Amino acid sequence: MTDPIQDTVNAVIEQLDVTQLAALSGGASFWETKTVPGVPSFAMSDGPHGLRKQEGDAADHLGLGASVPATCFPPAVSLGQSWDLELAERVGAALAAESQAQGVDVLLGPGINIKRDPRCGRNFEYLSEDPFLTGLLATAWVNGLQSGGVGASLKHFAANNAEFDRMRLSSDVDARPLHEIYLRAFETVIRDAQPWTVMCSYNRINGILASQNRWLLTDVLREQWGFAGAVISDWGAVADRVAAVDAGLDLQMPGDTAASDTAVVAAVEAGTLPVAAVERAARAVARTALLAQQSRREVTVDYDAHHALAREIAGRSIVLVKNDADLLPLDPSGRIAVIGPFATEPRYQGGGSSHVRPTRLDIPLDQIRAAAPGAQVTNSIGFTTDGDSDQTDLRAEAAELAAAADVAILFLGLAEHQESEGFDRDDIELPAAQLALLEAVSAVQPRTVVIISAGGVLRLAPVDEAAGAILSGGLLGQAGGSAIADVLFGTVNPSARLTETVPVRLQDAPSYLHFHGEHSRVRYGEGLFVGYRGYDARDVEVLYPFGHGLSYTTFSYEQLDVEHSENGLQVTVVVRNTGAVPGREIVQVYATKPDSAVIRPPQELVGVGTIDLKPGEAGAVHISVRRQDLAYWNDQLSRWVVEDGSYRIGVAKSSRDTQIVGEVTIVGDDVRTPFTADSTIGEVMAHPAAAAVAMAAFGSMMPQEGAGAELGMDVMKMMASMPLGRVIGGADEASAQHLQALLGGINAAVLA
Amino acid sequence: MTDPIQDTVNAVIEQLDVTQLAALSGGASFWETKTVPGVPSFAMSDGPHGLRKQEGDAADHLGLGASVPATCFPPAVSLGQSWDLELAERVGAALAAESQAQGVDVLLGPGINIKRDPRCGRNFEYLSEDPFLTGLLATAWVNGLQSGGVGASLKHFAANNAEFDRMRLSSDVDARPLHEIYLRAFETVIRDAQPWTVMCSYNRINGILASQNRWLLTDVLREQWGFAGAVISDWGAVADRVAAVDAGLDLQMPGDTAASDTAVVAAVEAGTLPVAAVERAARAVARTALLAQQSRREVTVDYDAHHALAREIAGRSIVLVKNDADLLPLDPSGRIAVIGPFATEPRYQGGGSSHVRPTRLDIPLDQIRAAAPGAQVTNSIGFTTDGDSDQTDLRAEAAELAAAADVAILFLGLAEHQESEGFDRDDIELPAAQLALLEAVSAVQPRTVVIISAGGVLRLAPVDEAAGAILSGGLLGQAGGSAIADVLFGTVNPSARLTETVPVRLQDAPSYLHFHGEHSRVRYGEGLFVGYRGYDARDVEVLYPFGHGLSYTTFSYEQLDVEHSENGLQVTVVVRNTGAVPGREIVQVYATKPDSAVIRPPQELVGVGTIDLKPGEAGAVHISVRRQDLAYWNDQLSRWVVEDGSYRIGVAKSSRDTQIVGEVTIVGDDVRTPFTADSTIGEVMAHPAAAAVAMAAFGSMMPQEGAGAELGMDVMKMMASMPLGRVIGGADEASAQHLQALLGGINAAVLA
Repeated sequence: MTDPIQDTVNAVIEQLDVTQLAALSGGASFWETKTVPGVPSFAMSDGPHGLRKQEGDAADHLGLGASVPATCFPPAVSLGQSWDLELAERVGAALAAESQAQGVDVLLGPGINIKRDPRCGRNFEYLSEDPFLTGLLATAWVNGLQSGGVGASLKHFAANNAEFDRMRLSSDVDARPLHEIYLRAFETVIRDAQPWTVMCSYNRINGILASQNRWLLTDVLREQWGFAGAVISDWGAVADRVAAVDAGLDLQMPGDTAASDTAVVAAVEAGTLPVAAVERAARAVARTALLAQQSRREVTVDYDAHHALAREIAGRSIVLVKNDADLLPLDPSGRIAVIGPFATEPRYQGGGSSHVRPTRLDIPLDQIRAAAPGAQVTNSIGFTTDGDSDQTDLRAEAAELAAAADVAILFLGLAEHQESEGFDRDDIELPAAQLALLEAVSAVQPRTVVIISAGGVLRLAPVDEAAGAILSGGLLGQAGGSAIADVLFGTVNPSARLTETVPVRLQDAPSYLHFHGEHSRVRYGEGLFVGYRGYDARDVEVLYPFGHGLSYTTFSYEQLDVEHSENGLQVTVVVRNTGAVPGREIVQVYATKPDSAVIRPPQELVGVGTIDLKPGEAGAVHISVRRQDLAYWNDQLSRWVVEDGSYRIGVAKSSRDTQIVGEVTIVGDDVRTPFTADSTIGEVMAHPAAAAVAMAAFGSMMPQEGAGAELGMDVMKMMASMPLGRVIGGADEASAQHLQALLGGINAAVLA
Repeated sequence: MTDPIQDTVNAVIEQLDVTQLAALSGGASFWETKTVPGVPSFAMSDGPHGLRKQEGDAADHLGLGASVPATCFPPAVSLGQSWDLELAERVGAALAAESQAQGVDVLLGPGINIKRDPRCGRNFEYLSEDPFLTGLLATAWVNGLQSGGVGASLKHFAANNAEFDRMRLSSDVDARPLHEIYLRAFETVIRDAQPWTVMCSYNRINGILASQNRWLLTDVLREQWGFAGAVISDWGAVADRVAAVDAGLDLQMPGDTAASDTAVVAAVEAGTLPVAAVERAARAVARTALLAQQSRREVTVDYDAHHALAREIAGRSIVLVKNDADLLPLDPSGRIAVIGPFATEPRYQGGGSSHVRPTRLDIPLDQIRAAAPGAQVTNSIGFTTDGDSDQTDLRAEAAELAAAADVAILFLGLAEHQESEGFDRDDIELPAAQLALLEAVSAVQPRTVVIISAGGVLRLAPVDEAAGAILSGGLLGQAGGSAIADVLFGTVNPSARLTETVPVRLQDAPSYLHFHGEHSRVRYGEGLFVGYRGYDARDVEVLYPFGHGLSYTTFSYEQLDVEHSENGLQVTVVVRNTGAVPGREIVQVYATKPDSAVIRPPQELVGVGTIDLKPGEAGAVHISVRRQDLAYWNDQLSRWVVEDGSYRIGVAKSSRDTQIVGEVTIVGDDVRTPFTADSTIGEVMAHPAAAAVAMAAFGSMMPQEGAGAELGMDVMKMMASMPLGRVIGGADEASAQHLQALLGGINAAVLA
């Protein structure tokens, strides 16, 4: 790839001495980098669902100060539920505009860690339990942001899937799940969107801090994936700057880093740190700074338009989880009881570094009243979120209101102090006061609609039992209140889909037994089987599957066609709106390799499409499935491998609602490997060419047909597992030569 | 420990040159070791539930020849179900007598691998999914055998829990499950029974072949556990003799090993193999040979008595899994339909190296007829085990017979070719023909008794639904036929208990997703959560829990008392026979550490007791719980740790049927460790003495109360996870000194 800025970078770097080079790899202040001759500073700011630009010249040393108002778009938990690349790109562009207006060059996002466990406190900042969907959405978001001249910082790299003990915890993950689950979205975004920067995470990976992990930052990120940008530390992630720069880190944040700058220079002088590493880091930081300088532009932000965009995204992010007897959309003219504190004080974003000061805030109750001016809307708090106080009276009052109405809208969820960056939840329960309220309200009002506001998955079985309809919004940003009204009354027909499985019980979660580990190490024992991959593999019942989401209309699928395309498959399916109102359908494509030579999840998401249809209308949806997304990570060869043969392609409304299935045959990658002394007799005999060579050599040593009767077993089955070297190769020269000759003959036949 | 034979060994070894020393570490023939001056040969033979002594001078090169007749006692699957130490010791002694009579010095057993997955083909040779029970029974067995002057060979060392790819498969297991689950029984037996030999397994452990695994054979086995005997390779387990001897292997089997003897000498001469390793191996082999020579004695075997013992054990091994409406014991005078091929051709042992040629064989049908001379016993085959042939007629005939009888006894299970050493099962289903027969018979005969003969766990849900009573015998050895009759008619009142959980579905098994792995590596992803530990931890419904087993009488529990004893706890409970017939109760003690600092299974078996009671009689059962069995393996300190504080002691009829619960407080091991730069602020603040020192040093740096409102989160929670070194220790000298001073102060206060 040509990188026109590289010549300038080269010229600048040539002029710097070691002290200047070293200085570039440490920040100047809490949010800015240093200036050296030829290299300007650039400014970063927290994100990513809005700009958290701290006010004042110098931020306080913890980055806790107040921030300037910015549009609070729906956090990733909700944006993800839209499954909408175009929206993701538009929000990226909007964020770029707000960043430009505030002089921010790099917005610290997107967060693309995999939602491994529903308890993770920061799941609201992440997109999905699925790496394909995560990669797709994040690519669009980064493209949108960077098209506006603001750099992204892909985070948190990598395998940072819990908040507990996050500065030390080692995520002990085998190579295959690392590549296929935890690194896959990073790889996708880096290849497809070239983010300016990547932010390394706090945790360890297989024992080594991300900030000092050469395998991660150099071997994988730069050498395998070709990343050309800068690796920035998460704020405070560096324990040893010298080791970090050596391993591949380019920029330690936050500043001031004078002491560690000195340590870097000293290490170069002592010969313990190659100057090339310091130069690499300086080059990466200089490149980012120059890119930033080039990319700055005058922008006037239309905050009203951004609020409208926030509302549009929020409406597209609300999942209609349940809608018995078409309870929704509501008639805007009846008696409506609106219950719960989140109706007047909405829970709309998560706590921590991503916390934004919104430009304004739509209140659900107000928006419901505005949307249904003819309705008689009553309101009651029903419960408080402050813990154990007696809420009997609140509950009774709410139930009375509900009983007197035609429908009750119950706002349930988690309060700000119940989930946040910095800690994980212990369970996925709704607070007891809310469950009691739900029971009281639904007992007197069968037409109860529950709206869930929470950044993490909750056990919704009791809600499913009690409520007639459920909307799950995640955290909807500053315009969530109006978006909820849009969906409640049918102005927006919901199309969002769950990006995370809602289990029947927490104990069913694949990672349940291995979430926090102990002594700062956690074994990712479920391996590949994260999210729906795990529920499916054990055939565990779930409450709401990954990909689930209803609409106010219905869709049917027909005419599936799967063709080979230049770089994979082209899947076409005709979708028909069989209901009474216009609607949008999210079409999901899952692939299965039925006779795989390796362990594979029962199915994996490999394609997503969207179509808007009027009642009765049908249209073809074309979805490209990239060959790469059919590959598995071969841990023996350390590469992606596309297997040969037949694949099952399922087009589905959710991971557990396949509508139509096709089959396609693919010519796999050529990954023939030589037979060795460790190859078994069974492997040799299973390969016709190898078997022919081998039979001549050791056929006479094989037990005769019928041998083993005395042992009550099939001796041939036992022999099949013997490695050649254990049968033929002895310790002496002659048998070693015999074995080598045999292997030579076999490999000549097999690899020809 | 004094070892009087050691002087002789020393004297002998001193006289040997390197070639002679090297020769001792390789076998002479398929079953015997070499003779060198001063060191006789000793003979080994397959076991362990009977003697598989091959006939003829020299065994064939695969050890497949016919063997001399020997008593076929119940294999480990059944012996384990007795939960009876005294029986285990007696069978050990009987096996010693038969071995002595045949000139066998070392009997290759017991097999004590953990039944990690119900599909493992060799589970019939192992005792349990629980390491405590395994260790207890194996210790008794080894003591019995070795008291008769015959050495044991504890196998297969270690983490050999599948037959698939067994010569190469690497069991990738973390330190804690390795020690607590897979090595624990080995440790117990080695400490408590000093087996003459240990047999290393075929597989790899964390990438390294057991036969070449220094950590396993030297660090753990010899240095941690003090093993003084010889490490023998499983037959064909050695890939590289020099590496094996260097790592800790003492004897490569089988012989002839001339070529690798030469390689050992060459390696010593080349300086690549320390002569000390060769001497260690020679010393171990010489010691075993001299022990064997000393221990030989003239024995006349009473094969009738051994048959009677085999019958007694088998009767004590049959688990009464279900007995609705007291269907069993049967009235010996009615019309009895006996159905199934295993009634006339019993399945009574497993296939492979443990396969014994029995001295005689009790046929269940004959024994039923003999035990019920007044009954009208009819017989029909019902199904065949040869696969897919149409069995409609057989089924119809059997159903007709069943309908015409007062009770049907249905023999179901797995045929010899359906499970064996050398391969694993793909599922745990009963063959379809048997399920169809069960349905046909139970449809016409509500009084249907099913007797299960199989070495591995089966999915018994369909049997549980259809049958009124179920007896699960495992594989019962040559006297199983009479033992079945004993139990059917109440001559023996069953007392056996399951040693392995019977799941509702295979998919529920903790290891389900990680059984065979791929590319010859399998991650033990379930960690500690093997068997009931896993089902309990996820609160998964099981069909029959670990420890389950009914009786023809009933028992109640009272007066639990838990006292401290010299080396642990003394648990006393009064058991009362509340039924109408005499019976034996197996009393199980489980421990729970409710507020553990580490991850622990919800409960673990730590004690077993037995009591025989007449109707109405009550008696106290005294069970010692060893302090060691309350410990967990601390992977940070690499040692066992008994935690301080309260333990819950449950006395139970099964792992899911706790009868009475006590609590006891234990003074834990002193494992205070110093605070380091990696200790977090939260850890420091949680320790009063450390906190006092620390507050003086960094109190002023802490955020003020209420900080973080702007972030919508509790900043103190975030700070708590910061390591001291990341907060205080910078890269410069001054802050490093500050940190060291702080740690010095804290540790002085904490470790005082």
